[in-house]
Amino acid sequence: MLLALYLIAITAEAMTAALAAGRRDMDWIGVCIIACVTALGGGSVRDVLLGHYPLTWVMHPEYLWITAAAALLTALAAPVMRHLHRLFLLLDALGLVVFTVIGCQVALGMQLPITVVLVSGMITGCAGGVLRDVLCNDIPLLLRKELYASVSVVTGGLFIGSQHFGANLNASMVGAMLVGLVFRLLALRFNWQMPKFVYRDEWR
Amino acid sequence: MLLALYLIAITAEAMTAALAAGRRDMDWIGVCIIACVTALGGGSVRDVLLGHYPLTWVMHPEYLWITAAAALLTALAAPVMRHLHRLFLLLDALGLVVFTVIGCQVALGMQLPITVVLVSGMITGCAGGVLRDVLCNDIPLLLRKELYASVSVVTGGLFIGSQHFGANLNASMVGAMLVGLVFRLLALRFNWQMPKFVYRDEWR
Amino acid sequence: MLLALYLIAITAEAMTAALAAGRRDMDWIGVCIIACVTALGGGSVRDVLLGHYPLTWVMHPEYLWITAAAALLTALAAPVMRHLHRLFLLLDALGLVVFTVIGCQVALGMQLPITVVLVSGMITGCAGGVLRDVLCNDIPLLLRKELYASVSVVTGGLFIGSQHFGANLNASMVGAMLVGLVFRLLALRFNWQMPKFVYRDEWR
Repeated sequence: MLLALYLIAITAEAMTAALAAGRRDMDWIGVCIIACVTALGGGSVRDVLLGHYPLTWVMHPEYLWITAAAALLTALAAPVMRHLHRLFLLLDALGLVVFTVIGCQVALGMQLPITVVLVSGMITGCAGGVLRDVLCNDIPLLLRKELYASVSVVTGGLFIGSQHFGANLNASMVGAMLVGLVFRLLALRFNWQMPKFVYRDEWR
Repeated sequence: MLLALYLIAITAEAMTAALAAGRRDMDWIGVCIIACVTALGGGSVRDVLLGHYPLTWVMHPEYLWITAAAALLTALAAPVMRHLHRLFLLLDALGLVVFTVIGCQVALGMQLPITVVLVSGMITGCAGGVLRDVLCNDIPLLLRKELYASVSVVTGGLFIGSQHFGANLNASMVGAMLVGLVFRLLALRFNWQMPKFVYRDEWR
Repeated sequence: MLLALYLIAITAEAMTAALAAGRRDMDWIGVCIIACVTALGGGSVRDVLLGHYPLTWVMHPEYLWITAAAALLTALAAPVMRHLHRLFLLLDALGLVVFTVIGCQVALGMQLPITVVLVSGMITGCAGGVLRDVLCNDIPLLLRKELYASVSVVTGGLFIGSQHFGANLNASMVGAMLVGLVFRLLALRFNWQMPKFVYRDEWR
């Protein structure tokens, strides 16, 4: 089941990445590259930082093809995508919580400290989007407007907590993902935002 | 022979990186850093992603000195460089195909799947330029205008294909590089471009 | 003693990172993330490039908490920070020389060539700030205005040189850090700058 969710998640990330690339007038190969970086970049950053080799896409190169194909189809069908706005946001939120839980599991499997497990989930869930924004020359959205990181922390925290208290693996996975998904959708619906820290000076 | 081509390639990349740094008013140390990142960054990203340690410049620190020296000489001789425009484009294209073939060979030596071999060639050929553009705060050229990535795919594909069908190593290397080089120069001459994907919306 | 200096250094980097994040209107989680990346990013880049696993913050996750706490306190106390301008510059310079010496020591412990030891010090000292500027969508300061990289080279060179000639470890550490610190403060006081390389053309 996690594999099915993972495949949905990388497809969803590839589709949102393709639309971001289209906003920057990238060519078709650029669209594929941005999609692969966004969908597989979070897991790659995590694996490189934790020294967890080989990387997912090195073992399963078919994920690269899935991602590139999803991105190209999205680019072809872009005029239709406008009407699927809500579906996109749902898939995107699903990707975030699935990636977070997978990232936590990888770190748990390496028996790392709990803080690192939580950070591993956050990196897996969020780093792909940060790389996309850096390559598109934006200030990462993660750091400014969205509750991505908070959703990732809540999802990861619930998953780690329930595992810690001996809950069934599947139950705690599904539970954490459901809570994270609902949190994300409520945040979008009611436009929740973290308080911002605004600071101005000239001495740098 | 590959070593000689490699040295020419890192020198060429260092020179183009120095000119890019000059466009952003960087100081002399900045010029050297940008040059090292551009010339050696593609191989470093590949080695880190594939877990192929130690990195090239850790084993051969002299490459760092060569790169930095080439960048400083370029900065000193910048007024002359204006007239060597065509030579630069040729060296740059040579660097791209040489890096691509080297990247493919590293992945072949690790017996990775064919898709990963192709991606390894692309990363080696292109990631240095992407890092340069990110550090100079540009949208990576790779993703927008140039046929870099396509040239890299063609070169790598030819090299892998001919190896697969048992061709002589040197012959398939030279053949793939020649075709890639001609493709790149034709693309520059006739201003070939990939079709672009342009998308505008406001819902993000 | 090095541990105490290290803790001061990551706290100082976290504080300057928090102020940079505030200039970009980031939210509270964004501030923490930028702070962790700035304070621990230089060492992480070094460890990933040298294949020196596990990373510092994976072994000592408490550093993540220290960094995040320092960043949040800085954000809360931002109005006061305006008056501590000089203290900040001092702490920042201290962080630079401490990180540089630690980076050199890690590479010396792996018995790498001297050039790589010097580069390892530079990466540890400077890469965190570069990552901060890339995430905030600035051209890295390192590459344009400041003498950061030069200070790092001088500090690292002195440390390596004195170790090479058999000086006492603590003496050479303290000596190199003091010289680097004085150099940095003089550079700030008298506004020393490296010559810039300015280049304009239109042929790219």
